[in-house]
Amino acid sequence: MLLGKVIGTVVASQKDPKLEGLSFQVLQILDIQAQPTKTYVVAVDAVGAGVGEVVMYASGSSARQTTVTHNRPCDAVIMAIVDSWAVGGDTIYNKAEEG
Amino acid sequence: MLLGKVIGTVVASQKDPKLEGLSFQVLQILDIQAQPTKTYVVAVDAVGAGVGEVVMYASGSSARQTTVTHNRPCDAVIMAIVDSWAVGGDTIYNKAEEG
Amino acid sequence: MLLGKVIGTVVASQKDPKLEGLSFQVLQILDIQAQPTKTYVVAVDAVGAGVGEVVMYASGSSARQTTVTHNRPCDAVIMAIVDSWAVGGDTIYNKAEEG
Amino acid sequence: MLLGKVIGTVVASQKDPKLEGLSFQVLQILDIQAQPTKTYVVAVDAVGAGVGEVVMYASGSSARQTTVTHNRPCDAVIMAIVDSWAVGGDTIYNKAEEG
Amino acid sequence: MLLGKVIGTVVASQKDPKLEGLSFQVLQILDIQAQPTKTYVVAVDAVGAGVGEVVMYASGSSARQTTVTHNRPCDAVIMAIVDSWAVGGDTIYNKAEEG
Repeated sequence: MLLGKVIGTVVASQKDPKLEGLSFQVLQILDIQAQPTKTYVVAVDAVGAGVGEVVMYASGSSARQTTVTHNRPCDAVIMAIVDSWAVGGDTIYNKAEEG
Repeated sequence: MLLGKVIGTVVASQKDPKLEGLSFQVLQILDIQAQPTKTYVVAVDAVGAGVGEVVMYASGSSARQTTVTHNRPCDAVIMAIVDSWAVGGDTIYNKAEEG
Repeated sequence: MLLGKVIGTVVASQKDPKLEGLSFQVLQILDIQAQPTKTYVVAVDAVGAGVGEVVMYASGSSARQTTVTHNRPCDAVIMAIVDSWAVGGDTIYNKAEEG
Repeated sequence: MLLGKVIGTVVASQKDPKLEGLSFQVLQILDIQAQPTKTYVVAVDAVGAGVGEVVMYASGSSARQTTVTHNRPCDAVIMAIVDSWAVGGDTIYNKAEEG
Repeated sequence: MLLGKVIGTVVASQKDPKLEGLSFQVLQILDIQAQPTKTYVVAVDAVGAGVGEVVMYASGSSARQTTVTHNRPCDAVIMAIVDSWAVGGDTIYNKAEEG
């Protein structure tokens, strides 16, 4: 899995029928120091994440293993909202301390 | 998923029998600011997308989860036509405002 | 899928039994302008492609969806020979015009 | 598989129900000389690895083949703790010699 | 598939039970001219490859399609030992001519 920050949404009315009801969120992928990179992914939200939150997402066939995404043409899913992220003994992200 | 712009097509008459009837479109992959990159992918069209449209595509085994692509040797599928795409509160793409 | 040009072959007599009878071709991956890149992939040929031809290949589990590659340890398959490839209204590759 | 060093953890209380009880560890991916790179992955721990250890992880659908991760939305799993790693006849990592 | 040269091994005594008995080899990935790159992969050996040999490996779910790797948490498998590799009419690698 990688970690990303929810920075936006994608709206698509004309789509495969299996995608009805899903929410597509734009994630800015974070680097090993929790800093934003220039890369993104659009992921289906399985946990009710909101803009500004740091989340964990799974890619590939594993993205279809949540109840929300089962058997759907979806290759990325937000499967957790991150509370905290520690590297080398330091907390580099803590949701409770964010504005 | 990633977002791409339909910029062309691929025609192939000699192909695996399972690919009969599919439409192959060339997508220019867009970056996080909706700007075109130098990378592309050829995707099967499952939603009737046309040249110039911005679309969302799924890769890998997830690309075989639409009715159009089920059990076919296809690793990328256009599964939605994008209406709008917002990042950081700004709409960076809106189909209705395109020429 | 991506597009590549068949530039060579790989011969391997000592291999997993499931690979008996398959033909392994070296593809030079093409960029968005149909120009050769420095990257390659070795793909199983499911359509009778020859050296010099431009082909389309599928990767990952989708590469096992042709009759030739079903249930085999193969992660790339040539599933179509390209007749033509158009980008932005221009034909950037046309098999009939090649020498 | 690739090799990585466990450098931290991710805590996430709000997550897909299938992820309950799993431990998420941050791996710094190592290069061919066992030196740390700037890339990372978050992997589920299936073998009881601790911070500072060098581990081997599997990605994609293969990450769901351990008992711990079966049928879960997980795309990376730590499936072995590395004792030693030799390249070109030289041991470039040996757990027994680490502090 | 890609081609690599076997340059070393990984030993791991503490691992997922499904990995018992497998041999893990370090492959240095080769470029399109059969020259070594700085990238590597650790692959399970399904064909008895030895250090110094050039091999072909499959990645992802396809790596679980050999008898050796079936249902195991393995995302890369050596499935063939390369005899020769030709590009543009030239033999760029020939096992019989190696020291």
